[in-house]
Amino acid sequence: MALKVGVIGTGAIGQEHIRRLHTKLNGSTVVALNDINLEGAQKVADTYGGITVHKTYQDVIDDPSVDALVITSWGPAHEEQVLAAIKAGKPVFVEKPMATTAEGAKRIVDAEIAFGKKLVQVGFMRRYDAGYKLLKDVIDAGKIGDPLVLHCAHRNPTVPEAYVTYMAINDTAIHEIDVLHWLIDDEWTSAQVIMPKATRNTHAKLKDPQILILTSQKGIRVVLEIFVNCQYGYDIQCEVVGETGIAKLPEPMSIQMRSEEKLSNTILNDWKVRFIESYDVELQDWIDSTVKGEVNGPTAWDGYLASVTSDACVKAQETGAIEPIVTPTRPAFYN
Amino acid sequence: MALKVGVIGTGAIGQEHIRRLHTKLNGSTVVALNDINLEGAQKVADTYGGITVHKTYQDVIDDPSVDALVITSWGPAHEEQVLAAIKAGKPVFVEKPMATTAEGAKRIVDAEIAFGKKLVQVGFMRRYDAGYKLLKDVIDAGKIGDPLVLHCAHRNPTVPEAYVTYMAINDTAIHEIDVLHWLIDDEWTSAQVIMPKATRNTHAKLKDPQILILTSQKGIRVVLEIFVNCQYGYDIQCEVVGETGIAKLPEPMSIQMRSEEKLSNTILNDWKVRFIESYDVELQDWIDSTVKGEVNGPTAWDGYLASVTSDACVKAQETGAIEPIVTPTRPAFYN
Amino acid sequence: MALKVGVIGTGAIGQEHIRRLHTKLNGSTVVALNDINLEGAQKVADTYGGITVHKTYQDVIDDPSVDALVITSWGPAHEEQVLAAIKAGKPVFVEKPMATTAEGAKRIVDAEIAFGKKLVQVGFMRRYDAGYKLLKDVIDAGKIGDPLVLHCAHRNPTVPEAYVTYMAINDTAIHEIDVLHWLIDDEWTSAQVIMPKATRNTHAKLKDPQILILTSQKGIRVVLEIFVNCQYGYDIQCEVVGETGIAKLPEPMSIQMRSEEKLSNTILNDWKVRFIESYDVELQDWIDSTVKGEVNGPTAWDGYLASVTSDACVKAQETGAIEPIVTPTRPAFYN
Amino acid sequence: MALKVGVIGTGAIGQEHIRRLHTKLNGSTVVALNDINLEGAQKVADTYGGITVHKTYQDVIDDPSVDALVITSWGPAHEEQVLAAIKAGKPVFVEKPMATTAEGAKRIVDAEIAFGKKLVQVGFMRRYDAGYKLLKDVIDAGKIGDPLVLHCAHRNPTVPEAYVTYMAINDTAIHEIDVLHWLIDDEWTSAQVIMPKATRNTHAKLKDPQILILTSQKGIRVVLEIFVNCQYGYDIQCEVVGETGIAKLPEPMSIQMRSEEKLSNTILNDWKVRFIESYDVELQDWIDSTVKGEVNGPTAWDGYLASVTSDACVKAQETGAIEPIVTPTRPAFYN
Repeated sequence: MALKVGVIGTGAIGQEHIRRLHTKLNGSTVVALNDINLEGAQKVADTYGGITVHKTYQDVIDDPSVDALVITSWGPAHEEQVLAAIKAGKPVFVEKPMATTAEGAKRIVDAEIAFGKKLVQVGFMRRYDAGYKLLKDVIDAGKIGDPLVLHCAHRNPTVPEAYVTYMAINDTAIHEIDVLHWLIDDEWTSAQVIMPKATRNTHAKLKDPQILILTSQKGIRVVLEIFVNCQYGYDIQCEVVGETGIAKLPEPMSIQMRSEEKLSNTILNDWKVRFIESYDVELQDWIDSTVKGEVNGPTAWDGYLASVTSDACVKAQETGAIEPIVTPTRPAFYN
Repeated sequence: MALKVGVIGTGAIGQEHIRRLHTKLNGSTVVALNDINLEGAQKVADTYGGITVHKTYQDVIDDPSVDALVITSWGPAHEEQVLAAIKAGKPVFVEKPMATTAEGAKRIVDAEIAFGKKLVQVGFMRRYDAGYKLLKDVIDAGKIGDPLVLHCAHRNPTVPEAYVTYMAINDTAIHEIDVLHWLIDDEWTSAQVIMPKATRNTHAKLKDPQILILTSQKGIRVVLEIFVNCQYGYDIQCEVVGETGIAKLPEPMSIQMRSEEKLSNTILNDWKVRFIESYDVELQDWIDSTVKGEVNGPTAWDGYLASVTSDACVKAQETGAIEPIVTPTRPAFYN
Repeated sequence: MALKVGVIGTGAIGQEHIRRLHTKLNGSTVVALNDINLEGAQKVADTYGGITVHKTYQDVIDDPSVDALVITSWGPAHEEQVLAAIKAGKPVFVEKPMATTAEGAKRIVDAEIAFGKKLVQVGFMRRYDAGYKLLKDVIDAGKIGDPLVLHCAHRNPTVPEAYVTYMAINDTAIHEIDVLHWLIDDEWTSAQVIMPKATRNTHAKLKDPQILILTSQKGIRVVLEIFVNCQYGYDIQCEVVGETGIAKLPEPMSIQMRSEEKLSNTILNDWKVRFIESYDVELQDWIDSTVKGEVNGPTAWDGYLASVTSDACVKAQETGAIEPIVTPTRPAFYN
Repeated sequence: MALKVGVIGTGAIGQEHIRRLHTKLNGSTVVALNDINLEGAQKVADTYGGITVHKTYQDVIDDPSVDALVITSWGPAHEEQVLAAIKAGKPVFVEKPMATTAEGAKRIVDAEIAFGKKLVQVGFMRRYDAGYKLLKDVIDAGKIGDPLVLHCAHRNPTVPEAYVTYMAINDTAIHEIDVLHWLIDDEWTSAQVIMPKATRNTHAKLKDPQILILTSQKGIRVVLEIFVNCQYGYDIQCEVVGETGIAKLPEPMSIQMRSEEKLSNTILNDWKVRFIESYDVELQDWIDSTVKGEVNGPTAWDGYLASVTSDACVKAQETGAIEPIVTPTRPAFYN
């Protein structure tokens, strides 16, 4: 009765998802695996027992005992694996990015429409965060009137040397690009990136902090500070200014302390902890929706929009100008 | 492979637990039911299919397909049902109260020791609340030194007419009696109850608010305000004053709003919502521990301590004096 | 036109008040001084110029150029100096304690009534704190209904070795004894002191922390934690539980910081800073009221009540019992 | 010994300042007045007694008993009155705006430099707000490293019909234009204004909200949301993001309430209340500095910078482009 899942890619995030699907969540088991590192895949399978390791990802897709796929391979492989899953008519959960280019993302959208049924969910897990859900409830209930301006921040304590300027969009702001358009139920039309004075804690190839300004079809403006060497912690802020009031994303739960002349709460320093519960909620929702033949999370269309938007934002980083974000009209298929 | 559970009592809380065990949590299914209202039990069974309805609770216990019991019948039936489960050597989760008298609770402790293996877990779910767990982590890590004083409050917006003075202990403070002794890893030695000016929102048979003062073996004092007609909401406060600092139970997560000349967060008004997630965590832990043959939650001994303590507190309500709480030495069996 | 003030006692607090009266506040000048250390007094006078130093406190009182007195000598001298001021018919502001015994305080009350006009104001400055005033406004406006329970704390980071158990009442709780009776407009009828587990940061002659429970005529209960070696800072807490809501004394204004994995506000460590602005407001009010021939701050009666109450509290420290606080009926003179 | 002040302009703000200077603050008296409404001026003078009413503002300036001037006439008169005071060599406190054009402001700067001594202070009172001062202390102490980005908001509940788009700069953002350059000790180099979706609570001639982005010489960016029909209250926000942490302007002190299912603090609805204490501190500082022959508050140069900056911001409102803010090099005279 449980959903039988095949997982492609058994690296860190893959192993986490296998643990969730096989032992923690309700209604799913993992039955097949593949990874380009077959030995690694075998080790993971051996941890649990009863899981088949296939030689190729296509074998996982074709395995008749597999009801649905989870793709956690490296990014450049996602597009062809998702396309193969669609071809096989099997539901597929794919981690970010769905594809590495907007063109690739468009090919997935086209294939899914051609197949005639939504099969793809993209791993934008923030929509499943309890705080963002409460925030959306407040907005949708009209408690602040129409949203007008969003003040947001995405801050990391530090990043590795290999993290360079464009990654502030592709690796970091990408989360806001998706979750905020879901939050306000709107699509982006232009982007501007402002480069303030740089922190001394960055390096030559990374402008840090950056301010990304997004405009939506309704004219809503997002002001997103991206600051990945902020030193003090991992901190996600989102404040929605509406016509009659303001609603703010909750801080993660922590103990209020009085000690050492401070009244303080802990700020996390690790992004993995911040949204850890969202992954569980996300995959449980995927299991439940898949069993019902539905996709209720971020779709291939959302993945495509995220690609187009981040391309425009990277261009805006380079030009300093306000860059348009041009997307085709939303196909009825995705309404 | 899943734990096969028999549930005795299919009222409101029983139905909630059946839903959890059968459809939400991982590693359990409900296989058998009983209720004194057999028709009601049958309706619940029919909702899911594949669950046997037995004529008596003893039949559920004796059903060879049942691995473990969940008792959610009405309070006065708990003692004999738990004793029957112990007699059958089956693990049993029993909702509060484990027994309606301290003597009854003692009989369960004695039976369990005689059986030679811990089988009983009592449904004190607050220990599974994320906030209390964080608070215990802070204390156990020594971040505030030794605890000295706990300032606590247990407030309900209103209570029904039938709620009278002693219920402030047996129905309300009972939660703090258990969770706080777990929090500070200590046992209660005396109780005093102070009756402040009564709110005009109470009635003749209910003194409200009350202040319960508990002393522990280490000399720690708990000052617990019990106020069940506080009007403004359901509000659980706990602040632990230690030698070097103070740690405070988090407020439930909510959206900070700026509207109508107020900077505000919502306070819940329904106790069922406040600890809703704790029930899931509690039963998942019970499933996982039971499968391993362990009891990791509140034991029969904790249930017995809670009984003895609340008896002393009710006496303290009546006398106005500081009443001793006398318990036998903790048997090694429960260490 | 300015109020001409004579100051008796030119120690630390005396010098502070001289500076306020002479250079900071509006409508007063200091014209005469005395101290048992005449040299010290002369030095203070020389700082400003134009201030006469008298050989005795009586000379200051008798100086025809002196309109009103401020007494900041050491405590044991207060009673006779205040009595002498009353005899001379001159308004007098006296720092805490008004007298060192309840009998002495009663003599001042009697002398003032005999004189027939209120002349004495006692230096309970907390009533002039902006936070307490806001709190009183909320209560008086009926926003929480009738007060029922007050949860309070008075915490110091450390105290000197010479600070022993009874000083927790006479030097520390004395502030709450006055300000809280003003806050709820009620008088104390009994006191109980509970001694929790002691912190390892105290010494043999000081029980620390202590919990003082006061009952008022209306039945309101104050639960005051006194903790003078709390290590983490100087912290004054006051939360008033009323029939329909709860109002809390504001934290002192400070900058909210995000740094080093903490979201924090500073807690003061110095009591002198906490109420520094109250002293200005207090003395300005005293100047303005004195010019109008009124006493609008804490009266000799308040000073007397504080004495009687602290005597009962010290007795309660020793007996562990609930001790009555017996005061004569408030004379109409003080309504 | 008190500073003898002549006040020009006895409207609402003039009367407030007269009350402060004459009865509340220390070290000043008002000796002469003028207003274009002579009758009104006489009424104000009569309230106090002993104040001369002159027929012209020049007579006030020339009155040999006047040590210093306070100008609270209507804005268009400020420039010539300030110039006349400089010509007479008398210190002058002038309310905002110092002049209605940048050219006029420049004439004042030039006159003051020509005179050879600083005489002019401009009424930017926010620098005297306790919260901004604490914030500046934190920054100057290096507790957040170098400032990089400032997130600010200036929100009014509503504005009158006569308030139109450019006033968002000249009447509203003008306060941030001054106080923020003081806060970060830097000067503005460019401005951009973004017009988000408008609230339905505005009218045709007012774009509301607006986002003003200022760049400083050091590259610091200010993102200022101006929202003058925000409905919910008068709310001033300022968060300074530095290299190692973030510091936030405190909320005004208020009582934390638990009532009606909300944990809430009051938000002010009246701008006059928000900075009421700053006016006292500002004028007391002006009195004390003037007596010492100094100007320690905002200078004519600050007034000039504010003029140049707001002109550029209004241009940026119209063009939508990033507009340069060109000021001459700061004269050594103003260092």
